[in-house]
Amino acid sequence: MSDSGFARLPAPPYYAVIFSSRRSTTDGVIDDDAGYAQAAQRMVELAAQQPGFLGVESTRDADGFGITVSYWTDEAAIVAWKRQAEHAATRAYGREHWYDHYELRVAKVERAYGKKTPA
Amino acid sequence: MSDSGFARLPAPPYYAVIFSSRRSTTDGVIDDDAGYAQAAQRMVELAAQQPGFLGVESTRDADGFGITVSYWTDEAAIVAWKRQAEHAATRAYGREHWYDHYELRVAKVERAYGKKTPA
Repeated sequence: MSDSGFARLPAPPYYAVIFSSRRSTTDGVIDDDAGYAQAAQRMVELAAQQPGFLGVESTRDADGFGITVSYWTDEAAIVAWKRQAEHAATRAYGREHWYDHYELRVAKVERAYGKKTPA
Repeated sequence: MSDSGFARLPAPPYYAVIFSSRRSTTDGVIDDDAGYAQAAQRMVELAAQQPGFLGVESTRDADGFGITVSYWTDEAAIVAWKRQAEHAATRAYGREHWYDHYELRVAKVERAYGKKTPA
């Protein structure tokens, strides 16, 4: 019934940036969780201002493994977002402080479908 | 430091199936969590036996919003997996019993990179 969490996207084609990550921990506790959450929220706000941004979906389990997929009209929009200055600075900080491991994949969405249970 | 959760993938191109979903709940509790976990594990085992399967990454937060990305060599492998009989039956069951809402996107991964903190 809930749309919460889902991006509302146009019909394909469009692009997806699939970002898988594991947060770093100290003695089993995820590092800097408050600072991370604040930065993540800020990045979503910034991304939403970028030309070509279509939406984002993000989730992370209690062990610190997460997947964020952002959606964009085209490759040029992804490159422009990568170069956005505040995003680049936050990304550099995050690489050093927040993640043990991340993988990023850029993909062209060719087809899509879904189903929502009627309320 | 941990590879846990990450798919080990070849260099692109390959395909990604991005499955975003919200688990159904009753009075705020996620429905049939044990049955779902068992079926999800079985689906990963089955998928791993399919030709063209490359790997899978999956995570879900405490509110029941999850993203699973499975990776495949090509579109034909995805179609064959969709038609696999036990998978099709489980999918049909899941549509009725486990999910309030899901969205599935099929995408061609064009480039990829990552970083792992040295141990």
